[in-house]
Amino acid sequence: MTETPDALRLVALRDLPAVQPGDDLAALTRAAAAAQGLVLSGGVLVVAQKIVSKAEGRIVRLADVEPSAQARRIAAANDKDPRHVEVVLRETARVVRHARGIWIAETRHGFVCANAGVDLSNAPDADTAVLLPLDPDASARRLRDDLLAAGAGPLAVIVSDTFGRPWREGLVDVALGSAGLAPLADWRGRPDLAGRPLEVTAMALVDQLAAAAGLLMGKDAGRPAVWIEGLWPAGDGSVRQLLRDRSGDLFR
Amino acid sequence: MTETPDALRLVALRDLPAVQPGDDLAALTRAAAAAQGLVLSGGVLVVAQKIVSKAEGRIVRLADVEPSAQARRIAAANDKDPRHVEVVLRETARVVRHARGIWIAETRHGFVCANAGVDLSNAPDADTAVLLPLDPDASARRLRDDLLAAGAGPLAVIVSDTFGRPWREGLVDVALGSAGLAPLADWRGRPDLAGRPLEVTAMALVDQLAAAAGLLMGKDAGRPAVWIEGLWPAGDGSVRQLLRDRSGDLFR
Repeated sequence: MTETPDALRLVALRDLPAVQPGDDLAALTRAAAAAQGLVLSGGVLVVAQKIVSKAEGRIVRLADVEPSAQARRIAAANDKDPRHVEVVLRETARVVRHARGIWIAETRHGFVCANAGVDLSNAPDADTAVLLPLDPDASARRLRDDLLAAGAGPLAVIVSDTFGRPWREGLVDVALGSAGLAPLADWRGRPDLAGRPLEVTAMALVDQLAAAAGLLMGKDAGRPAVWIEGLWPAGDGSVRQLLRDRSGDLFR
Repeated sequence: MTETPDALRLVALRDLPAVQPGDDLAALTRAAAAAQGLVLSGGVLVVAQKIVSKAEGRIVRLADVEPSAQARRIAAANDKDPRHVEVVLRETARVVRHARGIWIAETRHGFVCANAGVDLSNAPDADTAVLLPLDPDASARRLRDDLLAAGAGPLAVIVSDTFGRPWREGLVDVALGSAGLAPLADWRGRPDLAGRPLEVTAMALVDQLAAAAGLLMGKDAGRPAVWIEGLWPAGDGSVRQLLRDRSGDLFR
């Protein structure tokens, strides 16, 4: 298990160029890190979903989208672009709630989020929509493998996105995919300071790391990659371990 | 609004003594910070709810608790200590779900969490339960005021706790109370990099800070206070702003 650190340093990668389809994210992040004297070793690189999706070409030109009758109906009722609604419908595996023009959906990956993760803002131009990566764990693993192959030291990679949530206002960054660390830090059964077994269940380590990195990813700052050092990642696994079985979810 | 930082440093306060009722948290955290060369200025001090509750005497001796008939019934059905169940019932404003011995409740503050925030593990001895502070915002403000009065520089204080959540497995740290910064970082209407208004709603800044600090508060490490520097807190407000109005919660 990843050891609890005494201190952490988080640094946003500056001057990362706007990412285009086909771009080599490992080369771009390595170059940006090197330019500011960062060595990508012994830490966690958190990259925003948006640049991963762009590099992977998960971009839809709205001009190429033919809205269905359902999309046109929903768009008309909510003052939306029917092509945008169509893209959201295609990314939706299950509608959780739909009211006041807000569309909360479960994606094919099992993530519950607004607009099924489809993003219009910050897209390369106003006529495109950016979709979630098809397999964010695989995206994280590919970036990590490429960085390791290029000489980076031990590191983990997290692909993060900004989600709303039940009960609490305000968005938080969470992990969509990870590679090179165990997503859950499981304290169950370990002794507490008084020697009794801890009752706390597993901590969502990758989500805490995504949230921490999110502090440096201000939405107007264009800083979609953050290096976290001081924490030596251990273990491995998939963010899908964090998807709660619906029947066992007592929190709703 | 708090500006997005380029870099952050997080340092756990080492050698904080076990907190007792009546202890002066400002004095204890100042001394611990000074001992490791930290100046509490220009940053955010995140303290775990548990030490705040202990300092405030929010501790119940189970020997003093007379379980109600309801508590005895629930305890018998779930193999629990009826005195513990009684304490949880007293802290519960509304039961959200109750199954398999897990009790998800809304507290009087409006927080939704397991056992209404009552904690047995890590309590001073096995025969006590630690309750949430009566008013965590006030707790944060008192600690901040005491630190400022003792000469600390500009800083914010967050009282954090570890919560489960819907949809996703794994616990995350969230803010229960804060003082000295605006809990939400509201990007709505600001231009994105392409000049279009951002559609993203407000970021839950205090929760992202709590989650970041939580990375250093390993459950077996006894590190209930973390100093975050590199972010100059701005604004003010209450964590109650993060409590979603139930009727408007589309995420459940």
